[in-house]
Amino acid sequence: MPEITAAAVVIGNEILSGKVTDTNSPFLAAELRTLGVALKRIAVVPDELDEIAIEVRSCHEAFDVVFTSGGVGPTHDDITMEGIARALGRRVVSHPDIESKLRVFYGDKVNRARLKMAEVPEGAELITDVSLNFPTIKVENIYILPGIPEIFRQKFLGLKPRFLTTPYCVKVVYTGVGEGTIAEFLDDTLREFPELMLGSYPKIDNPEYMVKVTLESKDAGYVERALQHLLRVLPAGSVVRTEE
Amino acid sequence: MPEITAAAVVIGNEILSGKVTDTNSPFLAAELRTLGVALKRIAVVPDELDEIAIEVRSCHEAFDVVFTSGGVGPTHDDITMEGIARALGRRVVSHPDIESKLRVFYGDKVNRARLKMAEVPEGAELITDVSLNFPTIKVENIYILPGIPEIFRQKFLGLKPRFLTTPYCVKVVYTGVGEGTIAEFLDDTLREFPELMLGSYPKIDNPEYMVKVTLESKDAGYVERALQHLLRVLPAGSVVRTEE
Repeated sequence: MPEITAAAVVIGNEILSGKVTDTNSPFLAAELRTLGVALKRIAVVPDELDEIAIEVRSCHEAFDVVFTSGGVGPTHDDITMEGIARALGRRVVSHPDIESKLRVFYGDKVNRARLKMAEVPEGAELITDVSLNFPTIKVENIYILPGIPEIFRQKFLGLKPRFLTTPYCVKVVYTGVGEGTIAEFLDDTLREFPELMLGSYPKIDNPEYMVKVTLESKDAGYVERALQHLLRVLPAGSVVRTEE
Repeated sequence: MPEITAAAVVIGNEILSGKVTDTNSPFLAAELRTLGVALKRIAVVPDELDEIAIEVRSCHEAFDVVFTSGGVGPTHDDITMEGIARALGRRVVSHPDIESKLRVFYGDKVNRARLKMAEVPEGAELITDVSLNFPTIKVENIYILPGIPEIFRQKFLGLKPRFLTTPYCVKVVYTGVGEGTIAEFLDDTLREFPELMLGSYPKIDNPEYMVKVTLESKDAGYVERALQHLLRVLPAGSVVRTEE
């Protein structure tokens, strides 16, 4: 089944310096998963033009969709638009529709810094959402979202219907024995079901289970057959419970 | 003042699929900051050899130190050692010291999967720490840490003394006005103090302040002079409080 692939580029010194914890990429990861979109990469880069441009360009070329987070405000460290423009070999221009919205919104308090928020890579599209004051900006396959978590979420939720695809089917097996014991049976299952996405996540000091094993595919029948195979080959008594 | 630069490469489909939130890179970001080390990049990549190798190679070349997180257990998806070996053009070999430790630790329960944990890129060093059962593995400038947060932390804390450098000096100004109002004064401060690291972080729906402005440098006197300059140019009444 065809997969839509995605990448997240998180822009901000505040995350790299540990001042702020990035909650946008975990939110995006979980949301994309429920939509059936495969997030293949997250990169956190500093507020530096070349770093932004290089990462955005490489994600733009490698993945179907790119989301950026951060760097779109009015201050000196907000250089995401310029970084994306550089990634795509475009100029930065002031978008007349955003500029007029900003002039209405700020009235006589409008200034150069605030008008900077009208600057976009040339040719950018505006995606308007009635629930939001300002449109979301998209250029090529890049959706440019702000870093403030509340607004990042609002904007993403507005975009969500665009990305709905076949969701993943997930089954989970919790084992009471460790990874070293089950590894060969996981390998065996992967030999039989090479298309399966199979994850193995040990948990230490956990009274309930030792390893969480996840089986996934967009093909529900395939996952079910793989699950039955794994349950058949695992040593008797090693499974604590399964979860659908 | 010379800066040690670092990158974190987090390896794991579980993070990209939103099953697990990466807490290792935020921990590392905060720890490195207190040590005075500049974390310049975080990349989360899937359990895929080429993706690991490409990212590790590029970080290995661009930064002084690289930390990897995850992918070092006994199962099929634990391919970090092979990825790093590929990044450096080295073979993967079984390290005799780790192998004998594993044989003692597991006794007659040792098997192929468990012995996989003795595999390292050829030429890797072992860093032993009396408080830990197993050594930390280092190859060139790459420290290879496990994904399980408790062990990641233990191992990092054991390494910490190696990275102590001149810490950053930070001052914070909280303003009661928005970024659009203060932007020009931040720009002015940066023109006077071009070496200053200056961050501007708006907070929405916050009764106490609108923007947190951070001023940083390894030179305490420089930050203090920049702070005094900023406080002088900001409009009267716009500062809620400052923090040292």
